[in-house]
Amino acid sequence: MPDKIAIAIHGGAGTILRSTMTPELQLQYEGGLQAALDAGYAVLDGGGSAVDAVAVAVASLEDFPLFNAGKGAVFNHIGQHEMDAAIMNGKTLEAGAVCGVAHVKNPVLVAKEVMLHSGHVMLGGQGAEEFARQRNMQVEEDAYFYTQQRYNQWQDALKEDKVQLDHTDKKFGTVGCVALDKEGNLAAATSTGGLTNKKFGRIGDSPVIGAGTYANNHTCAISCTGVGELFIRSVVAYDISCLIDYKGLSLKDACNLVVLDKLVKIEGEGGLIAIDKDGNIEMTFNSEGMYRACKDSNGRNEVLIYKE
Amino acid sequence: MPDKIAIAIHGGAGTILRSTMTPELQLQYEGGLQAALDAGYAVLDGGGSAVDAVAVAVASLEDFPLFNAGKGAVFNHIGQHEMDAAIMNGKTLEAGAVCGVAHVKNPVLVAKEVMLHSGHVMLGGQGAEEFARQRNMQVEEDAYFYTQQRYNQWQDALKEDKVQLDHTDKKFGTVGCVALDKEGNLAAATSTGGLTNKKFGRIGDSPVIGAGTYANNHTCAISCTGVGELFIRSVVAYDISCLIDYKGLSLKDACNLVVLDKLVKIEGEGGLIAIDKDGNIEMTFNSEGMYRACKDSNGRNEVLIYKE
Repeated sequence: MPDKIAIAIHGGAGTILRSTMTPELQLQYEGGLQAALDAGYAVLDGGGSAVDAVAVAVASLEDFPLFNAGKGAVFNHIGQHEMDAAIMNGKTLEAGAVCGVAHVKNPVLVAKEVMLHSGHVMLGGQGAEEFARQRNMQVEEDAYFYTQQRYNQWQDALKEDKVQLDHTDKKFGTVGCVALDKEGNLAAATSTGGLTNKKFGRIGDSPVIGAGTYANNHTCAISCTGVGELFIRSVVAYDISCLIDYKGLSLKDACNLVVLDKLVKIEGEGGLIAIDKDGNIEMTFNSEGMYRACKDSNGRNEVLIYKE
Repeated sequence: MPDKIAIAIHGGAGTILRSTMTPELQLQYEGGLQAALDAGYAVLDGGGSAVDAVAVAVASLEDFPLFNAGKGAVFNHIGQHEMDAAIMNGKTLEAGAVCGVAHVKNPVLVAKEVMLHSGHVMLGGQGAEEFARQRNMQVEEDAYFYTQQRYNQWQDALKEDKVQLDHTDKKFGTVGCVALDKEGNLAAATSTGGLTNKKFGRIGDSPVIGAGTYANNHTCAISCTGVGELFIRSVVAYDISCLIDYKGLSLKDACNLVVLDKLVKIEGEGGLIAIDKDGNIEMTFNSEGMYRACKDSNGRNEVLIYKE
């Protein structure tokens, strides 16, 4: 019997209501999730690494225009797309991240390149873009990132002079993936366009190792989505790892404690996906819904949006 | 008897050798440390908050040209000064950070302003500078940050085409402070100019909450200095907090485990300062030396550079 492989992805959490969803739109979301899930799973199934699988799955989510990452990233205050992403290898504890980066087609692939070829963990702003260009990563003109929906959201936010989450219904637009490969290695990756109309180079939790993204074969791999500021202050992803490592909690108990108790107490709305070395998957959120999906070699295949 | 107050600061760790130090230079370093220590302690002694104390002490270290932060920050690859800083309030778990910011005289004070008045935790690059200017924080021309020593180091690094630590003797140039105030509240702050000749908007652990900076009344306050990449991957500051919280370790045992064992195993050279709610202070490092000092209301006053 081959070793178990498993993968989970998310496309953000928040106030996702059936009343504001059309059947057509729901099908599009589900299609985008399934395509990314299948792309990541195919890497694992072919004997590829968890790192490669999460990169491929998140890149697929970045390319899907309905999610707030890569193509479909929200507009910042001055009409640009400043993106954050991170990736971490649970086997080596190597990590890579970019923040406030523009023009790169797939921020998660740049984060992977940072991890493998920069000698650093975190690159920011124009420097990160310059690194991507020197490494011949795919870059795009501003027009590539334009979507009418995001433009309208930005215009609405400008009129109301507010920084807002990425949907008219409150949603934390982020995408992420966690995976377990045939060798028993874990990895996590996260990517986001951040907040519509954001100012001052605001950076959320996605590119912060330990906050929005973390992976360690010894414990788990985690990708978060939620109120970035509170997730940073709570060091959410590493907190779950420590609860497993130092208190002996199960993956499920650790995720429930952090997401459904600790974060709720500070109004830290959002959620996360998590996986451990046995292929257990948790998709935990304290908001109305979370775009999420998972698949494993035992035949599980779920694509979900609302609470069960 | 008034409640105990205590403060500790650092000015970076690394290969600080007596053989390369002159008596005059040592006096300058010790004077800079004592002045910052006294400035922070005076805040605490006057009934001020731990947050204000760490901000004042770190700002003093930033103003001191021999340390790699604020005035005296190293040159990056293109001859600019890109600085990182963070601050965290252990009472509220509020935090603020800036990364890759130029021209602001005191990055730690901008980080505090981010914490108090931005609605965010982390601001990067030109956006962070714009925020500082809008909040009327003190900004300086490039000339303010010029020091002959740093310029020479940059020229040497350019010739050798390498990214280097901030001294000709290998040193992780960072400054930081942790404090306990009369109300029993903890705080931590860290600031750095990063690596000489750094490229691509490289960000280290200093502004990463949980890695280089963390404070929580329930456990401890921490400020780190070392190989930033490894400190990020190890989530060093929050790891110590979790070892205390979840495993019941003392502050001393937690610091020793992380700095003298876990970090050593991955060649994570550096150190940290830590304080808990009882005013226990640890100044732990695995390098040859660490510029450090501490003072408390029991009469302790230490200014140290080398191993004891």
